[in-house]
Amino acid sequence: MLDFNFCSPTYFAFGKKTEEKVGELTKKFGGTKVLIHYGQGSVERSGLLNNVRKSLQQSEIEFVELGGVKPNPRASLVYEGIELCRKENVDFILGIGGGSAIDSAKAIAVGVPYDGDFWDLYEQRPEIDQVIPVGTIITLAATGSEASNSSVITQEKGWKKYGFSSELIRPVFSIMNPELTYSLPPYQTACGIVDMLSHILERYFSNTEEVDLTDRMSEAVMKSIIENAFTVMNNPQDYGARANLMWAGTLAHNNILGVGKEQDWSSHQLEHELSALYDVAHGAGLAVVLPAYMKFTMPKHVMRYVQLANRVWNLDINFDNPQETASKGIAAFETFFQMIGMPTTFAELGAKEEDIPQLTAKVRIKGGGDILGFFEPLTRDDISSIYRLCL
Amino acid sequence: MLDFNFCSPTYFAFGKKTEEKVGELTKKFGGTKVLIHYGQGSVERSGLLNNVRKSLQQSEIEFVELGGVKPNPRASLVYEGIELCRKENVDFILGIGGGSAIDSAKAIAVGVPYDGDFWDLYEQRPEIDQVIPVGTIITLAATGSEASNSSVITQEKGWKKYGFSSELIRPVFSIMNPELTYSLPPYQTACGIVDMLSHILERYFSNTEEVDLTDRMSEAVMKSIIENAFTVMNNPQDYGARANLMWAGTLAHNNILGVGKEQDWSSHQLEHELSALYDVAHGAGLAVVLPAYMKFTMPKHVMRYVQLANRVWNLDINFDNPQETASKGIAAFETFFQMIGMPTTFAELGAKEEDIPQLTAKVRIKGGGDILGFFEPLTRDDISSIYRLCL
Repeated sequence: MLDFNFCSPTYFAFGKKTEEKVGELTKKFGGTKVLIHYGQGSVERSGLLNNVRKSLQQSEIEFVELGGVKPNPRASLVYEGIELCRKENVDFILGIGGGSAIDSAKAIAVGVPYDGDFWDLYEQRPEIDQVIPVGTIITLAATGSEASNSSVITQEKGWKKYGFSSELIRPVFSIMNPELTYSLPPYQTACGIVDMLSHILERYFSNTEEVDLTDRMSEAVMKSIIENAFTVMNNPQDYGARANLMWAGTLAHNNILGVGKEQDWSSHQLEHELSALYDVAHGAGLAVVLPAYMKFTMPKHVMRYVQLANRVWNLDINFDNPQETASKGIAAFETFFQMIGMPTTFAELGAKEEDIPQLTAKVRIKGGGDILGFFEPLTRDDISSIYRLCL
Repeated sequence: MLDFNFCSPTYFAFGKKTEEKVGELTKKFGGTKVLIHYGQGSVERSGLLNNVRKSLQQSEIEFVELGGVKPNPRASLVYEGIELCRKENVDFILGIGGGSAIDSAKAIAVGVPYDGDFWDLYEQRPEIDQVIPVGTIITLAATGSEASNSSVITQEKGWKKYGFSSELIRPVFSIMNPELTYSLPPYQTACGIVDMLSHILERYFSNTEEVDLTDRMSEAVMKSIIENAFTVMNNPQDYGARANLMWAGTLAHNNILGVGKEQDWSSHQLEHELSALYDVAHGAGLAVVLPAYMKFTMPKHVMRYVQLANRVWNLDINFDNPQETASKGIAAFETFFQMIGMPTTFAELGAKEEDIPQLTAKVRIKGGGDILGFFEPLTRDDISSIYRLCL
């Protein structure tokens, strides 16, 4: 096990009608003038936005609003939000929606006190020492952004999709009402399920030894996600399944499943290029990339994949041919993604074979180096091979 | 799943030599004058205390010291600590040791700003709104006090052992170096292992439905504790096993395994009377009480115990006779406790059959009622029966 620091200070209010506590919580965490930041009209139509306005008014908190966050949230709206917050002296950002709205809220929160172009932070990833506090109300179980220290934004100039991390951007509170996810279309629900599984797998793809506890917890959360996924695809209004999935999405990404180990995150880098180029949903892109990544890395990491197959999918181990077990586990993930309606090939995603050289060249490698990831260090040729396995 | 709030804001510095960060962390969390509070001489002999003094001095933080915390920490030392802190204007308490030192530190932390006898708080459990911040360096993987919201103190007058909980007494930071546990005697290591398993089981003994995720995580942590227990009993200096156990002890009791469900805690109440009367180690008392509690409650909760047997102990389910599987799972816990050198009977513990009426009468029931616990509500007769199953 590697040495680590861990701190997940977010206050979670989880359960029915918890959105009615937003005024009280915002006050508790010092907000006096709030930016309500959200996506498209569904939060207005569902009545959620009105409940939020009412709760803030009851707590005598002023607010301004900025909607219009799109999936793969854009830098242009972040600039607009920063300007609005400065003009209106906003001291608290409330992100309402899925990961896009919350990631956009985080970007505004770091941008307002930053004396320069916020995109520099996403390009260069320096340490920061100041943000405006962020609270969230999530309407989608997926990204874990409600508890994570990260934010991903797409810059329209050049269609770059970059992430930024800082302990300072963990939300101070997150309101989680599973009922708010009842009306999600099956496709979006499934994208969320793949996304949360990916957050666990990226941490599971690791060569660090002596992390048995974290391994077992990761396997436990994956098993629970898979079981509840079947329930929720069958009955979108099953409270228990929605609740377990929502909390799983949080635990998948607040790093409790990643402490003390080297983590990979290559699949995310490969997916970022797909969603940047084709504007596909992140979860859908991951459903295509993950099985390809697993197939490519399996031969050098057979026993890791055997453990995954055995513990998550209950597959008996073929001790004469562990590779077979490892492959079956990967096939189980691929089949599962298909069963919940996710694409698993470039064609289903609308991605094109002839774009592979361009995608490969654009994949961002930290520090500008030539080798991506840690579990299995990937060259550009390897990256190209993984994209080809998506065909 | 029940609605819940969850917040575990403690900052964890985990790994080798992390005790050297104590000055830096105390400063970061606002301490300027520290009470170093610890147990018996081992922290002095091991050199830990000197390293702490050095680190505080390097950060230019003043300190006073109060050692002498005993297992089942006493009210008398808490009074002494409160007086010392007031006299010396202490604004930060640093608990060093196992759960006893940290629980005692927490009691001092609530007592200093409280205008009255701190024991009133443990007797009456009111809401509090003020504490002195507490930091910890743990030398024992067991109680989870390094991240929990609770503290248990024994009042010598009448030998009462009472707990107190408040979100305000969660430590602001906890320093966790697994190497500091290398020199623990096997008996204390084993007591810690039982203690952390008990914290998970008390939360697992629940009738709340739709908590599949938390169940699976609890089972995962128990499996990991059991596996690493065998390693560490065999090789006390196995870093990986010590590290996994230490982190498991924290997760077992910061309530991440208990959110959204009714919890039981009857076994703890029954054990408190044993350690109050016979001054036995908490973990040893639990090793006696837990199997008895499980045997008593199993017939009305067969499938819960089947799940435990199957998922934690990998026992195949006898579908014709699930009670048999349930019993085998309970026997596995009892055997495991014996294998790591724990007592599982009154006789081994030094407890006496003739004391059962007295023990039964003293068991503390919240709100002064007649029924203990939630999983299986226990009358005083039931409590007596459970003590008899310990014979």
